Amino acid sequence: MAKSRIRIVDAGRLDYDGSQIEPLWVFRELGVQGDSITYFIGGMKVAREALVDVGDLREQKGNFPISSDEALHFIVEHFDDPSLRLAYHRQRILISVSIEKLNKASDRKISRDASDIYVDGRKLSVSVASASVSSSKIHLGLNISPKGVPKGVDAIGLDELGIADISALAEDIAKAYAEEIAEIEDDITKTRVF
Amino acid sequence: MAKSRIRIVDAGRLDYDGSQIEPLWVFRELGVQGDSITYFIGGMKVAREALVDVGDLREQKGNFPISSDEALHFIVEHFDDPSLRLAYHRQRILISVSIEKLNKASDRKISRDASDIYVDGRKLSVSVASASVSSSKIHLGLNISPKGVPKGVDAIGLDELGIADISALAEDIAKAYAEEIAEIEDDITKTRVF
Amino acid sequence: MAKSRIRIVDAGRLDYDGSQIEPLWVFRELGVQGDSITYFIGGMKVAREALVDVGDLREQKGNFPISSDEALHFIVEHFDDPSLRLAYHRQRILISVSIEKLNKASDRKISRDASDIYVDGRKLSVSVASASVSSSKIHLGLNISPKGVPKGVDAIGLDELGIADISALAEDIAKAYAEEIAEIEDDITKTRVF
Amino acid sequence: MAKSRIRIVDAGRLDYDGSQIEPLWVFRELGVQGDSITYFIGGMKVAREALVDVGDLREQKGNFPISSDEALHFIVEHFDDPSLRLAYHRQRILISVSIEKLNKASDRKISRDASDIYVDGRKLSVSVASASVSSSKIHLGLNISPKGVPKGVDAIGLDELGIADISALAEDIAKAYAEEIAEIEDDITKTRVF
Amino acid sequence: MAKSRIRIVDAGRLDYDGSQIEPLWVFRELGVQGDSITYFIGGMKVAREALVDVGDLREQKGNFPISSDEALHFIVEHFDDPSLRLAYHRQRILISVSIEKLNKASDRKISRDASDIYVDGRKLSVSVASASVSSSKIHLGLNISPKGVPKGVDAIGLDELGIADISALAEDIAKAYAEEIAEIEDDITKTRVF
Amino acid sequence: MAKSRIRIVDAGRLDYDGSQIEPLWVFRELGVQGDSITYFIGGMKVAREALVDVGDLREQKGNFPISSDEALHFIVEHFDDPSLRLAYHRQRILISVSIEKLNKASDRKISRDASDIYVDGRKLSVSVASASVSSSKIHLGLNISPKGVPKGVDAIGLDELGIADISALAEDIAKAYAEEIAEIEDDITKTRVF
Repeated sequence: MAKSRIRIVDAGRLDYDGSQIEPLWVFRELGVQGDSITYFIGGMKVAREALVDVGDLREQKGNFPISSDEALHFIVEHFDDPSLRLAYHRQRILISVSIEKLNKASDRKISRDASDIYVDGRKLSVSVASASVSSSKIHLGLNISPKGVPKGVDAIGLDELGIADISALAEDIAKAYAEEIAEIEDDITKTRVF
Repeated sequence: MAKSRIRIVDAGRLDYDGSQIEPLWVFRELGVQGDSITYFIGGMKVAREALVDVGDLREQKGNFPISSDEALHFIVEHFDDPSLRLAYHRQRILISVSIEKLNKASDRKISRDASDIYVDGRKLSVSVASASVSSSKIHLGLNISPKGVPKGVDAIGLDELGIADISALAEDIAKAYAEEIAEIEDDITKTRVF
Repeated sequence: MAKSRIRIVDAGRLDYDGSQIEPLWVFRELGVQGDSITYFIGGMKVAREALVDVGDLREQKGNFPISSDEALHFIVEHFDDPSLRLAYHRQRILISVSIEKLNKASDRKISRDASDIYVDGRKLSVSVASASVSSSKIHLGLNISPKGVPKGVDAIGLDELGIADISALAEDIAKAYAEEIAEIEDDITKTRVF
Repeated sequence: MAKSRIRIVDAGRLDYDGSQIEPLWVFRELGVQGDSITYFIGGMKVAREALVDVGDLREQKGNFPISSDEALHFIVEHFDDPSLRLAYHRQRILISVSIEKLNKASDRKISRDASDIYVDGRKLSVSVASASVSSSKIHLGLNISPKGVPKGVDAIGLDELGIADISALAEDIAKAYAEEIAEIEDDITKTRVF
Repeated sequence: MAKSRIRIVDAGRLDYDGSQIEPLWVFRELGVQGDSITYFIGGMKVAREALVDVGDLREQKGNFPISSDEALHFIVEHFDDPSLRLAYHRQRILISVSIEKLNKASDRKISRDASDIYVDGRKLSVSVASASVSSSKIHLGLNISPKGVPKGVDAIGLDELGIADISALAEDIAKAYAEEIAEIEDDITKTRVF
Repeated sequence: MAKSRIRIVDAGRLDYDGSQIEPLWVFRELGVQGDSITYFIGGMKVAREALVDVGDLREQKGNFPISSDEALHFIVEHFDDPSLRLAYHRQRILISVSIEKLNKASDRKISRDASDIYVDGRKLSVSVASASVSSSKIHLGLNISPKGVPKGVDAIGLDELGIADISALAEDIAKAYAEEIAEIEDDITKTRVF
């Protein structure tokens, strides 16, 4: 198992308002430097001007196109290569390990469509990536309760999946993501190129 | 569903000897230009000097550290960003969609360790990525039969998973991978950056 | 002839005020995703604070250092490699194909100085490129009328060149640019590197 | 007019055999360091194994798919950004300035198809780009005589265009290319980005 | 000795308020284009909102976490590769050549800790790097007087080092830095890669 | 003090023949994966065909243009950003920390010219960097004895500097380099960009 250089941070309770996707948020607010995956539990309410997905801006008409009363949040930041393209590939990998851990923790059938996680056709997650000149960021939110999501979204929460220990799930996902990226680095450093 | 610019190529029967991981192989041999995922069915016998995983070179002592009598092969080539780091992230995504399709096609429990696919602790796959100055490459081989693998490897083949139509599986995986990458591009082109 | 992945968009009538050079403008306003070349006809009035050419800011003293009463505009956006260096090379290629099409449509002698197009020493065009972390942009404006340009600029418009069908010219240029970039991609995918 | 950092080198008489497209050739053979455009006059005979255009390798069946008895050659090398994508954009710019200079030196109508220059449907040029980890390269050959080209190619030479002073043309093109790249750098250093 | 493409600019007297670290400052204010190292003498007072070192923002509580009554300033800007990683390596090289020149100009023992220069445990310098999509920047300030630094900082100035001719020192450092980078470019253009 | 992700490896006695500058040498031969700085003591004899400095190839006429009977060697490999430009900046930083440690260990006056270290005008070191698609490499050799260097080179060895404990010096330099790079990473992860 490869040794990870990614810090895993449990930030406790915290509401997500979109500012957490900004570069260096985790250093500014929590004093954590370097590549990291941070998780916290709290509400989610992203105003139109804080959206980074311009598609949501175009399609959703409400004041808070992204919202949920209670969710488990992950914030990932990488400084090694601040490419938005790489960031979205890493987002898919985060989604993929999350589904593996959800499958382990619940009997319900989890499915995926691009970066969205569904349970029985009901939406469990929101996710986006972004980047600045020096770092790339990912946000993944898993609803704990289906309440408070924007009108017209048929949501589901982790509570309905029979997952009692949200913190254990969070830590599982964070560790698995950190290890996954470490294993990729491991492969890079043993490959002959042309 | 995003429109893919990745060509999907069915190359029929073909043996894998490691030369297929070299840059431009699919253009040299099959006349296919641009980003592509090519699949074919055939034996696999990679000599030591053709290995790109230097770890295999160090750990495996036989003349053909990678081998199988019959396997389903995928060769991916991308020209958009020839980073080895990105290539290995895409390899993980190819593994991930392959497992999704295997889960659909078989009742057996599929698991994963880094870039390896296992069924009941037996190894189904080999995979590696590489890169040159202008393109990145991925090879994924799924054993069809467990025969012919190197000594000491406990292998399993698709035949034991009750998957009759290998070509249908191959096409499914190739399409899903191409679509996955297209959806990532789609997300890139609607994201606000900092 | 190589197949282009660049969308060609006719945006009809629209005034250029400099906001169109911002990243994702074409998606925000017109819902067009991915690499694209968009053309439209309208006035041009760029205030000092909207300038991206800091040279204009230093040299031009008026409130609207870039202006014209009526012009044909092109907005190009690429997401493949958001380098400003590459963007300016592509701008030169856009200028170059524009001159080829102007030469076809008019008998007047067209000349070029860096990214500026001249007819008999009178300025036909303005152009600039810019970039963000995820995309690169080009604006090219060809005066239709010489009116409304900043004081001291000796301008000429397409109307004096005897080009009646501005839309046909616009489409010609857009198609030629898209094809040019596609042919470059074509060359990349068949080249042996060192 | 921007000051160029690109060295212009007149290498006199020299035959082109494909080795000149390799990285650092101009330093190894002529002691010229840094970004440069070198020109020389001589025969051209590229054996199959020296080809960098794999398309030529597939389509041309003779032993020397690229040949000409007498041609004017340009070799460009850049160390600033060794991207093959950028190299092919620069190749198009070299072709474009070459056509401008040919138009000035000859009354014959010059046309272009991708990176090929034609006069009355007859091929005047060959060109390719390549790259290594540290530099990018361009070769452009303009036939002086139409003799010695591969079978089936309808070629034309500069001699038929009434261009007497090949060296003057060579210097003109080299200077114009160097200045063009310098002007692009100039634009980069005065542009506001997002 | 390699020929440098970096302009050396003596900007006379000027106060540093943090705006000078912004991209294109030297072109906007002084009309200098391209890669450059600019030096000037003046006070230094950086308000919290102008800080680019978020660590200072977190640790320093005053309104002007970076200040000095009189300092020698260097502003470096590079457009060749706008990577923040490369920028910080270049900052270390600027620090390193500054120490070499300080050692030549003074008998006092100069030491270094990361990017900070000390004399007898007292802090002589402040320095930071930053980047945008198109350029990277470095600021280095060497106190001339130890007055006016933030509370709690034990500072020293060039005046105590017995360095009378600050301008001569400034020019020495600027020239040495420009030459250093030129020599690195020189090495790049004569190296065989793999 | 920043925590380094760079492995420090004492490889004992080993002769340098130029193959150690090749990508992945430290993994192939010593099983060390990831970013690393390895040191060893031994002779040095680099044949013409193993040179990576093409300048040496042009200027030195002997069969072994780089040689020494006994030297202390450092081999650095980085996988984070395989740019040759960055590699040469890191080489300068390695030279710089080596001089700091030599100054601590010896009373002799150490000077530097580009990447060469001199004592009283006599050459102590050889050094070069290189890169492949996936990693960058640095070699630094410090003569222990001045014997065995190519004709015409006035060399000096560490033995004349009164440095008895070569291993302690090696470890000092390796640790300081690893820490230096770690501190740069530290700065990157707390910097606001534009």
